[in-house]
Amino acid sequence: MSRVVKLAVIPGDGIGPEVVAEAEKVLEAVTAQSDVVFDKTRFSLGAARFLETGDTLTDDDLAAIAAHDAILLGAVGGTPGDPRLKDANIERGLLLKLRFTLDHYVNLRPSKLFTGAPGPLSNPGEIDFVVVREGTEGPYVGNGGAIRKGTPQEVANETSVNTAFGVERVVRYAFDLAERRRKKVTLVHKTNVLVHAGAIWQRVVDEVAAAHPDVSVDYLHVDAATIFLVTDPSRFDVIVTDNLFGDILTDLAGAVTGGIGLAASGNINPDGAFPSMFEPVHGSAPDIAGQQKADPTAAILSVALLLDHLGLAEESARVSAAVETDIAARSAARTTAEIGSAIAARL
Amino acid sequence: MSRVVKLAVIPGDGIGPEVVAEAEKVLEAVTAQSDVVFDKTRFSLGAARFLETGDTLTDDDLAAIAAHDAILLGAVGGTPGDPRLKDANIERGLLLKLRFTLDHYVNLRPSKLFTGAPGPLSNPGEIDFVVVREGTEGPYVGNGGAIRKGTPQEVANETSVNTAFGVERVVRYAFDLAERRRKKVTLVHKTNVLVHAGAIWQRVVDEVAAAHPDVSVDYLHVDAATIFLVTDPSRFDVIVTDNLFGDILTDLAGAVTGGIGLAASGNINPDGAFPSMFEPVHGSAPDIAGQQKADPTAAILSVALLLDHLGLAEESARVSAAVETDIAARSAARTTAEIGSAIAARL
Ligand SMILES: CC(C)[C@H](C(=O)O)[C@@H](O)C(=O)O
Ligand SMILES: CC(C)[C@H](C(=O)O)[C@@H](O)C(=O)O
Repeated sequence: MSRVVKLAVIPGDGIGPEVVAEAEKVLEAVTAQSDVVFDKTRFSLGAARFLETGDTLTDDDLAAIAAHDAILLGAVGGTPGDPRLKDANIERGLLLKLRFTLDHYVNLRPSKLFTGAPGPLSNPGEIDFVVVREGTEGPYVGNGGAIRKGTPQEVANETSVNTAFGVERVVRYAFDLAERRRKKVTLVHKTNVLVHAGAIWQRVVDEVAAAHPDVSVDYLHVDAATIFLVTDPSRFDVIVTDNLFGDILTDLAGAVTGGIGLAASGNINPDGAFPSMFEPVHGSAPDIAGQQKADPTAAILSVALLLDHLGLAEESARVSAAVETDIAARSAARTTAEIGSAIAARL
Repeated sequence: MSRVVKLAVIPGDGIGPEVVAEAEKVLEAVTAQSDVVFDKTRFSLGAARFLETGDTLTDDDLAAIAAHDAILLGAVGGTPGDPRLKDANIERGLLLKLRFTLDHYVNLRPSKLFTGAPGPLSNPGEIDFVVVREGTEGPYVGNGGAIRKGTPQEVANETSVNTAFGVERVVRYAFDLAERRRKKVTLVHKTNVLVHAGAIWQRVVDEVAAAHPDVSVDYLHVDAATIFLVTDPSRFDVIVTDNLFGDILTDLAGAVTGGIGLAASGNINPDGAFPSMFEPVHGSAPDIAGQQKADPTAAILSVALLLDHLGLAEESARVSAAVETDIAARSAARTTAEIGSAIAARL
């Protein structure tokens, strides 16, 4: 009896379809001899679909996607400055709407410097940490507005909303993860300035820490954290932080570990009430779309996270190992498909 | 007839007094033969003073400081975790109160990679940009609060307040500065997510840009900006951004240009209604205080910014040149005072 996993695939815009094709290639290769079958449904969503139909993500789309066991997403977003997209916010209307509606409260972003990966640091040391970014609240809620818009008297507010419920569940996840790793959690925030948002994060971390006496706990202001990411990234094991700081830190972390072309992520609903979604950290890069120039590794490593989330730990480890070997062997420039095929061939 | 400049000196906590002593040494050396006299008043403010008197910054302190032509500040802040400081927020009550009350709406933070400066990047290229950080609004206003504090039902909000008045004046400053440099302004924000705060920044930049047709304008999301800071920092000339993003970017920029020990800043009130304040970007580093381990270069370069602000362009250039020569010649470890004396000796 084989296990059937219903997978929603959202290739998206720009380089999204190219990297997702390679991720699917690898998924097929790694499950070829196993008894798991991925039953895939393709969803055509993103800027291109919006331009055709005017829809970003309908209730029907949402319901159909939610009926799957997991989601694989490439990248969404049209060409910056495209006047036809001026009033469409594909990021909020599609990507964030999926994360919020499907209650992806853990945005999991591992950072590992693979041997042979090109990085900007002259002396990176060993880098192997995970950012646990809150995914459903904070400054991302869209809570705000403006008065006297467009005038010299305009005032525009944007409110970060932080709940004990929301902070606690992601902090618990971070400590549980740290228990299975090097047992170190670093809270990153800006508690000395954002005193209201900062206080709730600090309180909850203190409380959860008390239940994990074997996990050492550290605090860094977000500005100081960016310094350590380039001067001493080995110090980190698990970073827990809010939605915005997590966004910033993980792009920087991607850059120091060989570029955003290698950075994978999972938008996770640990409770299993909704399907989790796996996607590269990078965007749709319309400037290089359709040219087979994109590195599909981030999408492929997102498949590894997806497999792990589904309890397919062995398959996940095999994908990671194949990527690791491939990176170590990289030399000449290869196309998107060549990289995907090379990794698939190692499985 | 000599010109008298009334200078308020706030050495502060931790390494503050040590680095300020060297900054004063350099200030004296550079003005020794000129007809400018610095008439200094010392203000004993910071965590130490708070612990003694319970005061952080009184109205009398503020009035006395405001009566000066300029301010030189070392660093403020006690030992992290000191229980006696638990409910004191020296950062907000002193540093931010000065910036806000003295209407320091331009937080000017130049980033330059000096020859010989140690940096974490293997291939940094030429780095020479200035971050123009808004200093009086945004997420720094302290606007927020919590309900059901300390309970599982707590909700804590923190609001970023952005006014056309506040954004426009700092954006104008950035464009004027770019006109005197390489004529390129990069707005950094997160307009795709922080749609309310982002829209006012984008609108104002578009409007001011229209009046500066010879300045090229660029936009980067803050997450992408951190990537470019480590992979291609030469691309930047003038970055204009809000209070929080500016805080984050300038610590990272300090790290990539040889460390926070070299990063200087000016909190500027361009209208001259209030004295401007010059300070190293680094903090009070209580762990190394009193050991002559701190690098006073950031404080000394802050003196260069101070001199420039006062119209003493030649003196400013001489201080920068002395620092540049000193950095190029660095080899063995030196004490704080040795570095200060070496730079002063070159003047
Ligand atoms: C596209 C954007 C909305 C998104 C975010 O800010 O979360 C992206 O930067 C990311 O990190 O996944
Ligand atoms: C100490 C803190 C309040 C301050 C800030 O956030 O502005 C510091 O980080 C800085 O950059 O000057």
